[in-house]
Amino acid sequence: MKILVIGANGTIGKAVVAELVARHEIITAGRSSGEYRVDLKDAASITALFKEVGKVDAVISAAGNVHFAPLAEFSADHYAIGINDKLMGQVNLALAAQNALNDGGSITLTSGILSSDPIRFGSSASMVNAAIDGFVRAAAIELPRGLRINSISPTVLQEALESYGPYFRGFDAVPAAKVALAYSKSVEGAQTGQVYTVNN
Amino acid sequence: MKILVIGANGTIGKAVVAELVARHEIITAGRSSGEYRVDLKDAASITALFKEVGKVDAVISAAGNVHFAPLAEFSADHYAIGINDKLMGQVNLALAAQNALNDGGSITLTSGILSSDPIRFGSSASMVNAAIDGFVRAAAIELPRGLRINSISPTVLQEALESYGPYFRGFDAVPAAKVALAYSKSVEGAQTGQVYTVNN
Repeated sequence: MKILVIGANGTIGKAVVAELVARHEIITAGRSSGEYRVDLKDAASITALFKEVGKVDAVISAAGNVHFAPLAEFSADHYAIGINDKLMGQVNLALAAQNALNDGGSITLTSGILSSDPIRFGSSASMVNAAIDGFVRAAAIELPRGLRINSISPTVLQEALESYGPYFRGFDAVPAAKVALAYSKSVEGAQTGQVYTVNN
Repeated sequence: MKILVIGANGTIGKAVVAELVARHEIITAGRSSGEYRVDLKDAASITALFKEVGKVDAVISAAGNVHFAPLAEFSADHYAIGINDKLMGQVNLALAAQNALNDGGSITLTSGILSSDPIRFGSSASMVNAAIDGFVRAAAIELPRGLRINSISPTVLQEALESYGPYFRGFDAVPAAKVALAYSKSVEGAQTGQVYTVNN
């Protein structure tokens, strides 16, 4: 398969590429690294990316930022960061991928455990991750040509504990290599509309 | 209790008022009806509403629009309708309510069954409803002063079948009066961070 990985230089992206590269042709893209530049917040940038890359069999997104802050300090503008970036960036990608995928191709987005297991400062992440999962469940039943869509909802990564550990006390972190297996299942399996939670 | 109901003139809002009015002081507000005018998309409008109304013990929102269309016809602008209105309108209300509620007060938002049980044309509703539920679960653990927050996630209303029935074939519709009980549980009970699904 020809697989486009957005955010390929991140912790998850690298693990996903490592998992898939032995069996597939991988094309990497990202905001500031990878073979191609793309800004998922900009629909025109996504269109340009698919024009350059051509038809693919799978699109994986492991990209997206959200703002973290105490609820009492959150404004609508702070929520807009995650909505425009991690949520609508990935939705824009999925919308464009509808036309750029070969028949039977797949779209795999990234949400996260905070959708159902919240932490302090994480109200935007909980909102955005849940929104991605809701979108995936709905989009799956309308995609044409056998196209599929799933999301991966990992708990905190072992590799991220040094930075984020204090916010995730008591969470049983997983290695990015384990999270990458869920992307393999989404791309190389046949299910659609699934939210693959990766936890211990 | 002094209870502010936004969207009090809608099908759910009327049923909620009917359920609660015998036991509580109800203040109604809405975009174009009710005792007070408020546009949840405009944070300043919400601030002005709470300034007029004064401290309350519960805030209920039964308001919010989303766009319905085939996935293939959806653009980012179409998703922005539901994000700005049903999602961020209610989140803006919750943020403002943090300061306008008496100690121990509650916030009750409205999401909907499509978060987990999607229909054709409903990808925005699924996204937005799931986002509201995710926000509620997260906000609940950070609210101060014993404040609580829940969402009500009803299936399609019997009263709406004449308009929306063809989109909800096979769904077991509930009367708005049954949905109103969940708002009563949220306001008059003691739970927080809950998504009350109302189904048969």
